[in-house]
Amino acid sequence: MKARRAQDTFAQTSKIVLPNDTNVLTNLMGGQLLSWMDITAGISAQRHCQRVVVTASVNNVSFNQPIKLGDVVTIEAKVSRAFTSSMEVFLDVYVDKVGGGRKKCNEAIYTFVAVDQNGSPIEVPELIPETEEEKDRYAAALRRKQLSLILAKKMDPSEATELKALFNQIPS
Amino acid sequence: MKARRAQDTFAQTSKIVLPNDTNVLTNLMGGQLLSWMDITAGISAQRHCQRVVVTASVNNVSFNQPIKLGDVVTIEAKVSRAFTSSMEVFLDVYVDKVGGGRKKCNEAIYTFVAVDQNGSPIEVPELIPETEEEKDRYAAALRRKQLSLILAKKMDPSEATELKALFNQIPS
Amino acid sequence: MKARRAQDTFAQTSKIVLPNDTNVLTNLMGGQLLSWMDITAGISAQRHCQRVVVTASVNNVSFNQPIKLGDVVTIEAKVSRAFTSSMEVFLDVYVDKVGGGRKKCNEAIYTFVAVDQNGSPIEVPELIPETEEEKDRYAAALRRKQLSLILAKKMDPSEATELKALFNQIPS
Amino acid sequence: MKARRAQDTFAQTSKIVLPNDTNVLTNLMGGQLLSWMDITAGISAQRHCQRVVVTASVNNVSFNQPIKLGDVVTIEAKVSRAFTSSMEVFLDVYVDKVGGGRKKCNEAIYTFVAVDQNGSPIEVPELIPETEEEKDRYAAALRRKQLSLILAKKMDPSEATELKALFNQIPS
Amino acid sequence: MKARRAQDTFAQTSKIVLPNDTNVLTNLMGGQLLSWMDITAGISAQRHCQRVVVTASVNNVSFNQPIKLGDVVTIEAKVSRAFTSSMEVFLDVYVDKVGGGRKKCNEAIYTFVAVDQNGSPIEVPELIPETEEEKDRYAAALRRKQLSLILAKKMDPSEATELKALFNQIPS
Amino acid sequence: MKARRAQDTFAQTSKIVLPNDTNVLTNLMGGQLLSWMDITAGISAQRHCQRVVVTASVNNVSFNQPIKLGDVVTIEAKVSRAFTSSMEVFLDVYVDKVGGGRKKCNEAIYTFVAVDQNGSPIEVPELIPETEEEKDRYAAALRRKQLSLILAKKMDPSEATELKALFNQIPS
Repeated sequence: MKARRAQDTFAQTSKIVLPNDTNVLTNLMGGQLLSWMDITAGISAQRHCQRVVVTASVNNVSFNQPIKLGDVVTIEAKVSRAFTSSMEVFLDVYVDKVGGGRKKCNEAIYTFVAVDQNGSPIEVPELIPETEEEKDRYAAALRRKQLSLILAKKMDPSEATELKALFNQIPS
Repeated sequence: MKARRAQDTFAQTSKIVLPNDTNVLTNLMGGQLLSWMDITAGISAQRHCQRVVVTASVNNVSFNQPIKLGDVVTIEAKVSRAFTSSMEVFLDVYVDKVGGGRKKCNEAIYTFVAVDQNGSPIEVPELIPETEEEKDRYAAALRRKQLSLILAKKMDPSEATELKALFNQIPS
Repeated sequence: MKARRAQDTFAQTSKIVLPNDTNVLTNLMGGQLLSWMDITAGISAQRHCQRVVVTASVNNVSFNQPIKLGDVVTIEAKVSRAFTSSMEVFLDVYVDKVGGGRKKCNEAIYTFVAVDQNGSPIEVPELIPETEEEKDRYAAALRRKQLSLILAKKMDPSEATELKALFNQIPS
Repeated sequence: MKARRAQDTFAQTSKIVLPNDTNVLTNLMGGQLLSWMDITAGISAQRHCQRVVVTASVNNVSFNQPIKLGDVVTIEAKVSRAFTSSMEVFLDVYVDKVGGGRKKCNEAIYTFVAVDQNGSPIEVPELIPETEEEKDRYAAALRRKQLSLILAKKMDPSEATELKALFNQIPS
Repeated sequence: MKARRAQDTFAQTSKIVLPNDTNVLTNLMGGQLLSWMDITAGISAQRHCQRVVVTASVNNVSFNQPIKLGDVVTIEAKVSRAFTSSMEVFLDVYVDKVGGGRKKCNEAIYTFVAVDQNGSPIEVPELIPETEEEKDRYAAALRRKQLSLILAKKMDPSEATELKALFNQIPS
Repeated sequence: MKARRAQDTFAQTSKIVLPNDTNVLTNLMGGQLLSWMDITAGISAQRHCQRVVVTASVNNVSFNQPIKLGDVVTIEAKVSRAFTSSMEVFLDVYVDKVGGGRKKCNEAIYTFVAVDQNGSPIEVPELIPETEEEKDRYAAALRRKQLSLILAKKMDPSEATELKALFNQIPS
């Protein structure tokens, strides 16, 4: 199974925020954005493994800035790291600025699993990060996976060597 | 501002999984469920604070079991803890079983913020947990908030007294 | 075939009225509510008979009070009586009140038929009403069925003993 | 206010049944058809009174024949009678037959009320029935209104002279 | 294969413009109208050939007048000419006028191809135009087909005898 | 008003074809693709002129290859030429290939007009084509505009100097 470069997993979608996507403040509803990100992230994961993928988990999505009715939203997704049968996908969300250009307004991380026709997990290729950002996110993806295993009580904290730098200053 | 009991924030919605909600395996797509949970959780948060609420973040959503086309899905939401202007909402997702009854297939945690008509955060009432489950989730909500503040580098790990029990066994 | 209690057929769904659900007065359109009630009533009927159900008829739906954009609507459905292969489902519609609580704004009655995989009607279990309201609606369901059979000319008025109390004051 | 001929209130809509309109038997769901009929009937009522109209009630909708995925459904609506501020709309539903032509598969009756910009009822013009079918439905509309007033306990049965022919054979 | 009269291919659909169909000026979006016209035109083509049809091309759609939120839009379609396996469908779009009647606001031309269950083109019956308008559109359909073949470089301009009247005044 | 480079008007959107987007052959319906292309093209035109844009016309859309349920469709749009207040947008449509990469399956051309808050046309900046493809499409856009003006009888064929090369071989 041939490793694939991060940039080959890039997926992008641009949308206009329509009335039904908004709440009573006429801001884009969080749930609508979650659903859009899921589709774009799924396309990215599918481009990595060339198999059917299913959403496994969603972590750390923050909605920092309201997005308004009529705004042009662009969602960009790239696989940040591949594990045995799962892939972490990192998403950046932008809104077009008046006058040109765009500003970033959100980040999110989704995890997908590649499955066969019965829905059973199957192996995926490795990911090759190339740019600085791709390498940073590749490294952070391992820490996030360890933290999630610890919180799910599937890993002993002492094994999470990658997390030590973060937590070893907690006085016991 | 009068505190409100957890059970008064209960919101429930039942849905049938339709073709457009499913992927090529005819399973409910993760993004669709994320959007449904956002609406139900938002209703719960609104019942707590009686104000307009906006989704602030989504954490720790795992999709453990596939939900099929035609399944009856029930989403239940209750506020688990209120902070200054934010509310953590805990969601349980069930599917009707053939022959009667239902089985649990998912949990999720969303955070909402109460806002005024300009979208600025405003204070919310305290939450009163009463049942054992409500009290457990109330306590865990604080640990989750501290962890999220630490990960966002807005809190020093040494202040997160609630997290110590979990992390002080990490050897430095 | 084991009889089932009315409360075991309870189904509930809460929704927020979105822009596309509304007419030019920004009130919830009747047709949208009819469609939502059909789904919730169908879940209730399915919980009673544990089979695929199809809508057979809709009667006596009145839209008494406008429901506004942004309102939280809660639809509650319970089977009111089971006949050979059909089930009458009684629906109550509520809107959340500002400040807490809810007010009732609508009632409706749908009839469903249980079908096999070819769409042919099959027998359903009996319904056991327990509360006062369940018993009242159970009795009224028979009168409604008789009236509908008479109007469809499938029953002779003289056989509709349940309807006599209502109509025998009509001078001939 | 000038009376309007029934044929000037005619509204028609043709649709193809798409996957999301169907249940697990791939038949058109009743609730979807109810919503489509509401729109077409509303256009008919609006053509009669040239005002904003809102759905007031739905009566006597029977779903006699399943409509399949991919079928072409045609809904035809015409105002059958106008009262002070309400209009009864009669709907016929057809499906295209293989080889040409169409077969009728459903009838329904909706009632609409004309409202001003505050949602208060306002007067509507009279309806002039011209064809035999229009005249039959015009006469039946009055009997239906009387029956509905009696059932709602807003009319004394003895005043419903139009209903006598139907009910005076009920032995007391 | 029996020829079919143009009037037997007539299809009509009326819709109310809802919030999600509109742009930030609350006018009907062009893409939404394109999609509605595709469905109505497809029903017309299907009525002509009594087979599954697929959209082959869209030409010469102009959006001359804005259509507003809440407007009643009526789309009328009729096959204007049949070729070997393709059918040109001519569409007229109207909006209800305040006070009664309607005004035309758009025309469009779509081409459909009849296909078998594998998606391969199959022959369609001839079309018989009867009214003056049907005959004019029948004649113009041939010129449009020739122009489109020339632009696609599938026909030599000198063979397009029907187009000569239009283009022979171009000085070389 | 500062001219803008073609590449700054690029807009892209990727979508998965869902059940409701497909016809009875489970191929993407033409009308659905027309609507998706309209949104993406509108974003491109808006990026060029930084104003509200409305669809003015659609020309020459051919659907050459069926797109299947579950396919990943990518729509790319770029302004090909700007006129006084209108912009021609050129669209390329791709489908992901099994095993990686993508194949082109469609082209389309939409025209948008920039409008002020009353919907009146306003001037747009010039477009600067840079690549060979951008220059080719820029030149062809003028020929298309002339042809469309001639067909609409708003231009005398003898003035369409750009079209001569194409049509002067038509023998008169």
